[in-house]
Amino acid sequence: MADLKIVVAGAGGRMGAANIRAVSALAGVALHGAVDRAGAEAIGKDAGSFAGIEPLGIAITDDMQAALAGADAVIDFTIPTASVELARQTSARGMIHIIGTTGCSPDQDRAFAEAANAGGRIVKSGNFSMGVTLLANLVRKAATALSAYDIEILEMHHNKKVDAPSGTALLLGEAAAKGRNIALADHSVRVRDGHTGAREPGSIGFATLRGGTVVGEHSVIFAGPSERIELVHRAEDRAIFANGATRAALWARDQKAGLYGMDEVLGLTD
Amino acid sequence: MADLKIVVAGAGGRMGAANIRAVSALAGVALHGAVDRAGAEAIGKDAGSFAGIEPLGIAITDDMQAALAGADAVIDFTIPTASVELARQTSARGMIHIIGTTGCSPDQDRAFAEAANAGGRIVKSGNFSMGVTLLANLVRKAATALSAYDIEILEMHHNKKVDAPSGTALLLGEAAAKGRNIALADHSVRVRDGHTGAREPGSIGFATLRGGTVVGEHSVIFAGPSERIELVHRAEDRAIFANGATRAALWARDQKAGLYGMDEVLGLTD
Amino acid sequence: MADLKIVVAGAGGRMGAANIRAVSALAGVALHGAVDRAGAEAIGKDAGSFAGIEPLGIAITDDMQAALAGADAVIDFTIPTASVELARQTSARGMIHIIGTTGCSPDQDRAFAEAANAGGRIVKSGNFSMGVTLLANLVRKAATALSAYDIEILEMHHNKKVDAPSGTALLLGEAAAKGRNIALADHSVRVRDGHTGAREPGSIGFATLRGGTVVGEHSVIFAGPSERIELVHRAEDRAIFANGATRAALWARDQKAGLYGMDEVLGLTD
Amino acid sequence: MADLKIVVAGAGGRMGAANIRAVSALAGVALHGAVDRAGAEAIGKDAGSFAGIEPLGIAITDDMQAALAGADAVIDFTIPTASVELARQTSARGMIHIIGTTGCSPDQDRAFAEAANAGGRIVKSGNFSMGVTLLANLVRKAATALSAYDIEILEMHHNKKVDAPSGTALLLGEAAAKGRNIALADHSVRVRDGHTGAREPGSIGFATLRGGTVVGEHSVIFAGPSERIELVHRAEDRAIFANGATRAALWARDQKAGLYGMDEVLGLTD
Repeated sequence: MADLKIVVAGAGGRMGAANIRAVSALAGVALHGAVDRAGAEAIGKDAGSFAGIEPLGIAITDDMQAALAGADAVIDFTIPTASVELARQTSARGMIHIIGTTGCSPDQDRAFAEAANAGGRIVKSGNFSMGVTLLANLVRKAATALSAYDIEILEMHHNKKVDAPSGTALLLGEAAAKGRNIALADHSVRVRDGHTGAREPGSIGFATLRGGTVVGEHSVIFAGPSERIELVHRAEDRAIFANGATRAALWARDQKAGLYGMDEVLGLTD
Repeated sequence: MADLKIVVAGAGGRMGAANIRAVSALAGVALHGAVDRAGAEAIGKDAGSFAGIEPLGIAITDDMQAALAGADAVIDFTIPTASVELARQTSARGMIHIIGTTGCSPDQDRAFAEAANAGGRIVKSGNFSMGVTLLANLVRKAATALSAYDIEILEMHHNKKVDAPSGTALLLGEAAAKGRNIALADHSVRVRDGHTGAREPGSIGFATLRGGTVVGEHSVIFAGPSERIELVHRAEDRAIFANGATRAALWARDQKAGLYGMDEVLGLTD
Repeated sequence: MADLKIVVAGAGGRMGAANIRAVSALAGVALHGAVDRAGAEAIGKDAGSFAGIEPLGIAITDDMQAALAGADAVIDFTIPTASVELARQTSARGMIHIIGTTGCSPDQDRAFAEAANAGGRIVKSGNFSMGVTLLANLVRKAATALSAYDIEILEMHHNKKVDAPSGTALLLGEAAAKGRNIALADHSVRVRDGHTGAREPGSIGFATLRGGTVVGEHSVIFAGPSERIELVHRAEDRAIFANGATRAALWARDQKAGLYGMDEVLGLTD
Repeated sequence: MADLKIVVAGAGGRMGAANIRAVSALAGVALHGAVDRAGAEAIGKDAGSFAGIEPLGIAITDDMQAALAGADAVIDFTIPTASVELARQTSARGMIHIIGTTGCSPDQDRAFAEAANAGGRIVKSGNFSMGVTLLANLVRKAATALSAYDIEILEMHHNKKVDAPSGTALLLGEAAAKGRNIALADHSVRVRDGHTGAREPGSIGFATLRGGTVVGEHSVIFAGPSERIELVHRAEDRAIFANGATRAALWARDQKAGLYGMDEVLGLTD
């Protein structure tokens, strides 16, 4: 089969560069174009050189129409308004559209659903890592099956991170809460210090470690009478998000029009 | 609801004692009788005292018929021929029969299926720990979803254990192989030493640690490009097997006749 | 060599029972007597039965003088005033005195030093676990050697524990602070939630997990540029404290009079 | 203080490139020259560009004499004969010489000692990671203190690694054996499969995991009655070796002539 021809939107950003590297490195895909907004510093530069790899002979452009011509897919980690506008174009062309943009409003999410109805093949996710996607699925399942076990979520990140718990820790907490059919906000315990009293049954605890250059580690612990299950994800490199986005594009090649999540890319449909 | 009245078969063995303790400790169940084979040392002794807890006023007997009278369920970790014979009796009485007996032949397994057809409510498993049952289920799922990731299985047990890898490690290996739709025997790597060459893609590796008094720890690692998932079980006490058997008996109270596994007790039916 | 004859003080308490079990189980020592305060519920009962093992033929008594006659050592996890009074007696007899009593005042600690000067062989510690004693020593050393690495301390305990962080986590934090020559109170970070900002260089972070029946796990993490050291202790059973106390008594047999700590029992004298 | 002026020998190799990056990134040091053997592909190229970072304006040369002029230190991961020859030159100049070259014969090691006697300040190590150096030191200490505990060594590396156990695992095994005053070769257990019998007391076990892109993780486990100590090192990036070599050079600035190891750089002199 011919390589899937991919355009990277937001090519001048950190995730854009990671996406260019992933598309260049993985089998079955080829970089077809790289786009950033008019006036961005990256415009005119070679996409490969800009991303810190060998030159690819593709200049970063601000002309999206030209870039889309002849392409099969777009990988898009940009901003909500840009992603919504782009979804109209990709659906009109019947293209694959991988959306990693965060912070979308309900109205914007509806616009993606409409684009999918109009013929787009869209995969949208808050975390394209295959490992985290799977972990969240397993956590939900374990939270249901071990319904009386205590759930604790631990994360460690590098010493520059400015907030706690991490977004991924909260995503895993939401998965656990969904498995228990409860609202996370009503059951989460985010601080323990001094006289805390015994653990509240049914609560979901969070703990945060910071240090060094750790890319990101998350553990979800299910502790019951005389046994524990620990479900752990260790990220070595932020490339996992770009790799997952590229894999999603390959998966979408064989799908009909629709709005999908990473669960479906991984076949986690229950 | 009245407590579920349970008879423990094989009461004079190590698992029998653990089952007596579990039935005494958990809510919703009550010890109704304790049976061992004629001539066993435990016959005539108080079931509680024999199991290392307070006296329960129930003598261990070799008269199974008397013990079954008025009982709702039997927890049976004995030997295959005894379990097959007992299954005929429990099915005739419409009782719950929890079978932890190992080493059964295909013929004997068929006998259990027939007993279930004849009205028995049987739960049979090679490992009644809720945690291990769930872990095996998650491992199978992860092996399918992360189809290109390397799978490694690590276990640690106390320094008296005489074989490697553990039965549970192999059970987890089988779950991984099932998720990949391959035969474990054709893909397992059980020894690495000296010049091994690069890892064979698609293989399932085992590694064994021995030391101290560790009850049992198992990790299944899925290692891919720049990320890892680790699914871990830590047993603190062998009581988890007896606790799981008792929970299975409670679960079976609301089921119709049939032959079930621990997956179904935990609601892991996909 | 003859077994070391040991009296357990505070025999009616939870640690007293653990000490009776340890003395009964380990080689080279024998239970010589078991004492509790006058009027305690345990008085008159068999020390073994009371501790949940086989009868030992030694009744728990409130007559310390009678119990000490002919004994080589006392293991004493009681209260400060009782330990101070007992130290006078053990030093007068040239006996070994193992003190696990906590909450002693500076005056009381001076009384122990005087008893040691007067001929007592005293080992006193806030934690008699060999593993924790060693871990604290290694943590201090690592904190000095990896002087620019971020230090984080994680602990997990069962869901009944009512305070956080654990006393052992704080003990490990003190060891780290000592290795850095700083005051723990001035550098500890015990809570992280919301917008925390980047990690403060030189701080020592704590994180707490609660769940299930976990006896106690502690990790001290040293995180630097592209690498981490993790020093971990996992307790399977509270018996480790009693085992350490018994080992301390055996060690003291060959020592001259003095006041020792567990570091010295383990030969960690630097 | 002026930056320490460093020459990187073997600049065209993988460790040479890592050393160039480390010297460029760390404070207090500056790249003064970069040397490779005559005819090497790297000769004439910019040292920074060749190492994958920004150009540094220093061409890789085959003229060692010219490169050494005005330099304070050499970081040398090359081959034994080259390192011996270079040690004569650095000692004659009173320079700092950091040697990461492996596979040296006893005669060659003697030549380094002679160079140190003649005025060289040499730091030589088989592993310049600060973390691994410290870990080996802690392992030796723990092996002595916990003299009856079972020792197990676990390592995980990426799926391209062709030998097992890793060199670092063996180095840690040697440290444990040294702490026990035994020979590793007589006590190591490198394979467990099938009926192994109970663990041999006093043995040191190895276990190997392979998968994904793991840079390198090592755990040394001390398992005793009801407790475990785990000493773990996690490498995120091979840069840790180059960072350690650069740190060694900075440390040596304040030392008199002599032959040192990384233990001394980290102040681990007991």
